[in-house]
Order: sequence, then C-alpha cells, then structure tokens
Amino acid sequence: MTGSHDFYGVIAPVLTPFDEQGNPDTARFVAHAKWLLADGCTGLAPFGTTGEANSLGVEERIGLLDALINGGIDPKLLMPGTGLCALSDTVAVTKHAVERGCGGVMTLPPFYYKAVSDDGLFAYFADFIERVGNDRLRVYLYHIPPVAHVGFSVELVGRLIKAYPETVVGLKDSSGDWDNTKALLDAYPGFTIFPGSEIFLLDGMRNGAAGCITATGNVNARMIRNVYDNWETDQADALQAEITAVRQTIQERPMIPMLKAIVAHYLNDPQWARVRPPFLPLGAGEAEAGIAELSEQFGFELKAA
Amino acid sequence: MTGSHDFYGVIAPVLTPFDEQGNPDTARFVAHAKWLLADGCTGLAPFGTTGEANSLGVEERIGLLDALINGGIDPKLLMPGTGLCALSDTVAVTKHAVERGCGGVMTLPPFYYKAVSDDGLFAYFADFIERVGNDRLRVYLYHIPPVAHVGFSVELVGRLIKAYPETVVGLKDSSGDWDNTKALLDAYPGFTIFPGSEIFLLDGMRNGAAGCITATGNVNARMIRNVYDNWETDQADALQAEITAVRQTIQERPMIPMLKAIVAHYLNDPQWARVRPPFLPLGAGEAEAGIAELSEQFGFELKAA
Repeated sequence: MTGSHDFYGVIAPVLTPFDEQGNPDTARFVAHAKWLLADGCTGLAPFGTTGEANSLGVEERIGLLDALINGGIDPKLLMPGTGLCALSDTVAVTKHAVERGCGGVMTLPPFYYKAVSDDGLFAYFADFIERVGNDRLRVYLYHIPPVAHVGFSVELVGRLIKAYPETVVGLKDSSGDWDNTKALLDAYPGFTIFPGSEIFLLDGMRNGAAGCITATGNVNARMIRNVYDNWETDQADALQAEITAVRQTIQERPMIPMLKAIVAHYLNDPQWARVRPPFLPLGAGEAEAGIAELSEQFGFELKAA
Repeated sequence: MTGSHDFYGVIAPVLTPFDEQGNPDTARFVAHAKWLLADGCTGLAPFGTTGEANSLGVEERIGLLDALINGGIDPKLLMPGTGLCALSDTVAVTKHAVERGCGGVMTLPPFYYKAVSDDGLFAYFADFIERVGNDRLRVYLYHIPPVAHVGFSVELVGRLIKAYPETVVGLKDSSGDWDNTKALLDAYPGFTIFPGSEIFLLDGMRNGAAGCITATGNVNARMIRNVYDNWETDQADALQAEITAVRQTIQERPMIPMLKAIVAHYLNDPQWARVRPPFLPLGAGEAEAGIAELSEQFGFELKAA
C-alpha cells in the first residue's frame, strides 16, 4: 500500500435488491450495505456493474444513495458509481454524491460510442471535473473493458493524474488482466489502485495496490478481508488460494444472479433473487447446486449480521 | 412498401448542435430540424446515434423534444430516440414523448451489459411497454450492433411483434449487413423496416422496406428523397449509385464531426462544428478537404432553407 488515500482494503460493489414491482428495494439495500460493513468491508461502492447500476436511472441512484446516508452509513465510506453514458447525467449524480459527502466516486468512461480516442476521453473527464466544480471531488476511474468496451489506456491514466492530481486519485481495474494492473501499479506509485477481483488481491498488495473492489465481497467479505489483513504473514498464500477457489466456484455461474441467489438462500428471503432485465434469475436448481458446492467444498455460509 | 405504418421515406437522425458552454443549442437544433423537413425529410429521429444522443442526459432530451414541438414541428413526424441504458430512464423519456404526441419512439436495447439473452431482452421490452402503459406507444426497435454491441436477433424481433403487435411496429437496422435487413424483410412482411443507411435504400424498397433512416439525411436529404420517390422508375439505379457515392465520400471521415463540419461550412456558422466529448471536432484542414471533394465530385452543396 503506497501513497495516501481514503479508500483501502475490501470494498464491495453493493448488490441492488428489487421489490415485486421491479423497483429498487430501499430497505433491503440499506440493510445489506450495513451488513457488508459488519462483515469486513472497509468501504462500499454502490452502483457498480454488480449492483446492476447500469439498469438504474439517475433518480433511482440518487434516491438509493440518500437512503444509505440517511440510514446512518458514513458517506466517507461510500464510493458510488456515477458514470452514466451522458456527461450531463454523470455530472448530476456526481454532484449529488459530492454534496452528500461521499469519500469518492467511481466513474466509467462514456461507453456508448466505441473506438473513441484518448484525447476525446481526456476532454470528457476535463469537462466532467469542471462541471462538477467542487474541490472535494475524488474520482476513481472505473476500467472495465470486458463490459464497457471503452477503457483507460495506461497513458490516459497518466495524463489525467498529471492534469488533476488532487481529483483523479485512483482506479478500479476490472480488466481481469494482471499485466494491465501491474503496469498501472508500476507506472503510478502513490495512485490508489484496486484490482477488480480478489483473485489479484495478494499479487496486488505485494505490488502496491490498495486492496480490491470485488463483486464477491457481497457474500465473502470476511475471508477476503482476512487475506488483506494478513498479506504480509506466512499464511498469505494459503489464504489467497482459498478465496481464489471460492471466487472461481461462484463465477462458474452468471455472477450477479448467483450472488443474489446466495443472499436469498442464506437470508431465507426469495425476493433477494430478483434481478432487473436484461438479467434473468438463475433457475432454482442451478442456484442451489452452486450453493451446495460452495458449502461442501469450502464450508461456505453467509451469516446474517 | 408493405403494410401500414405512420413513418416512411427519408428520416434524418437530427444532429444536435452545442453552444460555447457545450450545452445543447436549442435554437439551432429547431432551425436545423425545420430545414430538414423543408429539404425532403418525411420524418425526423432526434436523439439517435448521429445526434450524439448517448451523450445527452434525460433532462436534455426532454428539453430538446419540447423545443421541437413548441417550435411548431408536428409531433407525428417525430420518432425520438428514447433508449437509455436503464429501464427507468428509458421509461421516463418515452412517456414524455408519447404524452407529447410523437408518432413513435426509436428504442435501443439496454446496452451496458453484454452477452445478455434474448429472454432477458424480451423481459426488458415487456417491462418497458408495461411501465409506459399507453396505447399510443409505437416502438421502432433500434438495431445497431456495431455501436451498441447488443442487438435484436431475427427471432427476438418476431417474439416482440407477436406479443405486442400494436406497439412494436418497426425497426431501424443499422447493422450495416444487408443479409440481416433482407432476413427481417422476408420474415416479417408488414413490419416497418428502415435500413440505417441510404446505401441500402433501393434494395430495401425492392424488398418491402419503408425507406431509410440515415445520418447523411442531415446534409443530403433531397438527393436521397429523390431515390425514394423514383425507386420504381428506370432512373432508380443511377440515382442510387450517386447517393451511395456521396455517402461513401462522407463516411471516409468520422461521420458525426464530418456532418457537423458540412453544416458549419455551408451555413458559415463555425459553432455548428462543435461536438460533445468523447467526440472531437475534425481539424479544419480535414473537414475542408472532405467538403471540397464532395463539391468537386458531385457538385454537392447544402442550401440553407
């Protein structure tokens, strides 16, 4: 861990539960977020890819963020996803997050138009930062090319850091490509970098990462946190191997429906299995097979707070 | 042209001008839309890919749509793009368009999450149509896989037509793949299909298409309309060859900045060349070279209304 940053450790991109009408279920959302902090998360990234955030509208994000903070969660622990397709929507959600005191925001590049240039993306972020116009803004770049198909080159990250050293303070690398994460860690010591999966947690820590921001933090934060807390000990490699194996078992099935099925199972709350289209819930048999595998192989269970 | 539909002919996805602060320039937008109708367009599709709509927020789209209608354009001629990433934002913009009397809406599939299933996309459109909850809703599916990376299979189109025959009435095919357009035309006679480029206009008309919805309609509507009006005459192939050649010359350069540069040039209004990041304007030399080529090769010019 190098440099100074407000976020570190194990951060979960909070799952978004939906009610019977398919609208966000605020009460379950806030309860889950609180449980995640009790279970070992050191911060929360609501409205990430895992949170089905790109199926949530501007007003829905603002309403859910308010619910977390009004529900008693320290906004300094929150790094909400605020990167929508359009500059103006991105600015609206970000302004709200900064005004509510969030520790940072995690921001996608504009992702509809493809094959755009680094110059164009730089211009977008320059415009974004100027329009938000708040010294308290802390941006964590969200690099997830397998989904967004638009990402941040190592060079573009450097240009943004140089131009906005107080504002562009970190990056989540969900490329799934350790070589890319390593290149960023080597190029920008002091910049706060989170691999987007706990599979890279130990390698990351040994190379200056700040922790990880990971989907499976929604169900396995305690074990992942244990690796983070013990990364300099003799146990580290064995602990890492175990969380890697759990992750690989979970991701054998579609990640978001599987995570929700796990929560639904252990809370005995079938509503948690709902997803918003274009996702579909797993078949009951499929989910239960995965949960049985986790339980048998790893003694995995999710304990309600 | 088969079946009954409200939209036909040459429809332009209206370019969106921006002011010095990078905000949509309402006055220029309305003036351009009116000029397009005077220049031969039979309908307008504001907020398409060409209109940089995916760089426009929810409130910006609503404001610009109101400006067109309040400015005197018949809403029945308008097929605004209303497909945002998130169901709730898509519903909000669509409801507004229907309430304002728009003849239809052009709707992208949810395009952030990739590799989603036809069942998931069907569920999305079912939810969308139910939430809009208005018998006057007319949806034109917007198929543009080269950009959106999520599209409509021929089978999914059939399922949607069957489930919502009064609502899902058409499709714009911007796949750039004539085989796909032909497969749709053959599979669903009576369904209103627009190729997304005038290159396929004559082939389309000969196979039951309703016309075309094309970016270059912003600068070349009159010539394209002439092909539409004369597609059954002996001149048709020669006229088609000419609009194809003009299109190919325009698309040698990045399409959206090039179209804006053409408008800026002929209106002698440099502000028109502005684009919103992540796009960047063409260099002055690059744009002028393209405009000179169009003028010399085709006697092309754009006449202000």
